[in-house]
Amino acid sequence: MDMQVSLLDRLFESGLLIETGVDGLYGRSGQFEDVIAAFERLVDRFGSADGAEAIRFPPGMNMAYFEKSGYMKSFPQLAGTVHSFCGHDHDHMSLLKCMEEGGDWTKEQKSTDIALTPAACYPLYPTIAKRGPIAMTGGLYDLQSYCFRHEPSKDPARQQMFRMREYVCMGTEHHVTEFRQTWMDRGVEMMKLVGLDVEIDIANDPFFGRAGRLLANNQRDQNLKFELLIPVTSTANKTACMSFNYHQDAFGAKWDLNLEDGSVAHTACVGFGLERIALALFAHHGLDVALWPDAVRKTLWG
Amino acid sequence: MDMQVSLLDRLFESGLLIETGVDGLYGRSGQFEDVIAAFERLVDRFGSADGAEAIRFPPGMNMAYFEKSGYMKSFPQLAGTVHSFCGHDHDHMSLLKCMEEGGDWTKEQKSTDIALTPAACYPLYPTIAKRGPIAMTGGLYDLQSYCFRHEPSKDPARQQMFRMREYVCMGTEHHVTEFRQTWMDRGVEMMKLVGLDVEIDIANDPFFGRAGRLLANNQRDQNLKFELLIPVTSTANKTACMSFNYHQDAFGAKWDLNLEDGSVAHTACVGFGLERIALALFAHHGLDVALWPDAVRKTLWG
Repeated sequence: MDMQVSLLDRLFESGLLIETGVDGLYGRSGQFEDVIAAFERLVDRFGSADGAEAIRFPPGMNMAYFEKSGYMKSFPQLAGTVHSFCGHDHDHMSLLKCMEEGGDWTKEQKSTDIALTPAACYPLYPTIAKRGPIAMTGGLYDLQSYCFRHEPSKDPARQQMFRMREYVCMGTEHHVTEFRQTWMDRGVEMMKLVGLDVEIDIANDPFFGRAGRLLANNQRDQNLKFELLIPVTSTANKTACMSFNYHQDAFGAKWDLNLEDGSVAHTACVGFGLERIALALFAHHGLDVALWPDAVRKTLWG
Repeated sequence: MDMQVSLLDRLFESGLLIETGVDGLYGRSGQFEDVIAAFERLVDRFGSADGAEAIRFPPGMNMAYFEKSGYMKSFPQLAGTVHSFCGHDHDHMSLLKCMEEGGDWTKEQKSTDIALTPAACYPLYPTIAKRGPIAMTGGLYDLQSYCFRHEPSKDPARQQMFRMREYVCMGTEHHVTEFRQTWMDRGVEMMKLVGLDVEIDIANDPFFGRAGRLLANNQRDQNLKFELLIPVTSTANKTACMSFNYHQDAFGAKWDLNLEDGSVAHTACVGFGLERIALALFAHHGLDVALWPDAVRKTLWG
């Protein structure tokens, strides 16, 4: 924990991250953004030959799709729903009076049709399902968006609003597990190019509550989730900077994603935690980008 | 309205925008994003010599700052607050039961410390105030973020989640009004370079309710807000694609933004509605970027 606070403080002092008064909610300097942009260009170089379709969703998604996704079953504590004032003049007077008196005015906010996106790929599945059957050669999508997770923390690598770059593959079991393996290999290679020590390990999602422990054990037993780990604030507790997820046909069945032969599509996704990767670079190579190793600078900025 | 729906349908058909089932919430194609990135580079070319400090905030802001901003006084209907589940195992069971039965489970969500950012500059003022007095030569900041406004609409130019690029100037009255005039001139010049017909007109914000009409009239009478208007879905009702706002010393006084001589800072901001500008380009030059006029393509992609 001390190393986490220490890195966060150094990031604030250097101006790379900017305090907002809320743990896990930070502004970014131009330099921080430039590192993320450079790393994304590296992702593009590794991924571009695959011909993925680029789609960029905003940081919120259709509430109906969010509900159907099952996120509230697995991670209710992390989700964010968007609420608004839906009253008239008179209600507005009451709202302002409540605010003036320091009362909880937010209780009168009504939920909208929008939930914050918990992972970049969540809005994709219903979008692709609406297009009809997926070609037997599979579908490949390139996503990036701000995501929200309600987990205030002093660990700079655990932010409430952060960007996730993702590739999602839909197709046969063979196709999507090959895709996942390809990106595990690429992930290791990319991180080596930017001078970061990594290891890949089996992992599980932070499923909620007692029932969640069963889900987590099941996920591990079936090798469904791997993470690429890098020391950021601790060498003992490394930070997951990429994840590699095989959903079997669970998302295909849920969203009616079918292949042209009528079978249910299998899906897999690989995600880059862009802020975490930038933080790993700063933690490892120092806060002054001009002093990073030449090879790393060359990889990122040519 | 018909022209709005018609443009939206054509954008869906071409794949430039992607339906999500919620009005005003859309995915963007790679091509759409490429137009926005190209236009932002044009903004950079016009603005870079000024040496603005680049800061990128996430799409949410500190709720305490949001409350202090007065946004709920002026635009309560547009605001979005972020709510989360804060219960334990037992509450989770009730939540899932409520969802299964089709009840309103969102009533149990509790407001978090985060509100969605209504305009890119809202998180900036308290951030700069914390740094202490502003140099007499003024402060200049370059911002961009996703913003939220709860106004579902079939007009593709009125989205609930959209990106705003902004420059914000803090300094003397003379300094910040000069800044605003410079960007009005630049805005006209930039839009001419990308082949768009524009006019600049005095404007007012959509203040809420009966009391809001007074605020709107006051804003117009004092020439505090100008907009750069471009025909997107209608030549009669043009779309505001940029706005130029002079806040006098209102934000300076609210946020304790002082100049080095102890006087309260005046502030002004210029905002680019990035989706609106992209839509203006598609509406005017056609949905196929390859067929845009050579001069426009050259300005945007060199």
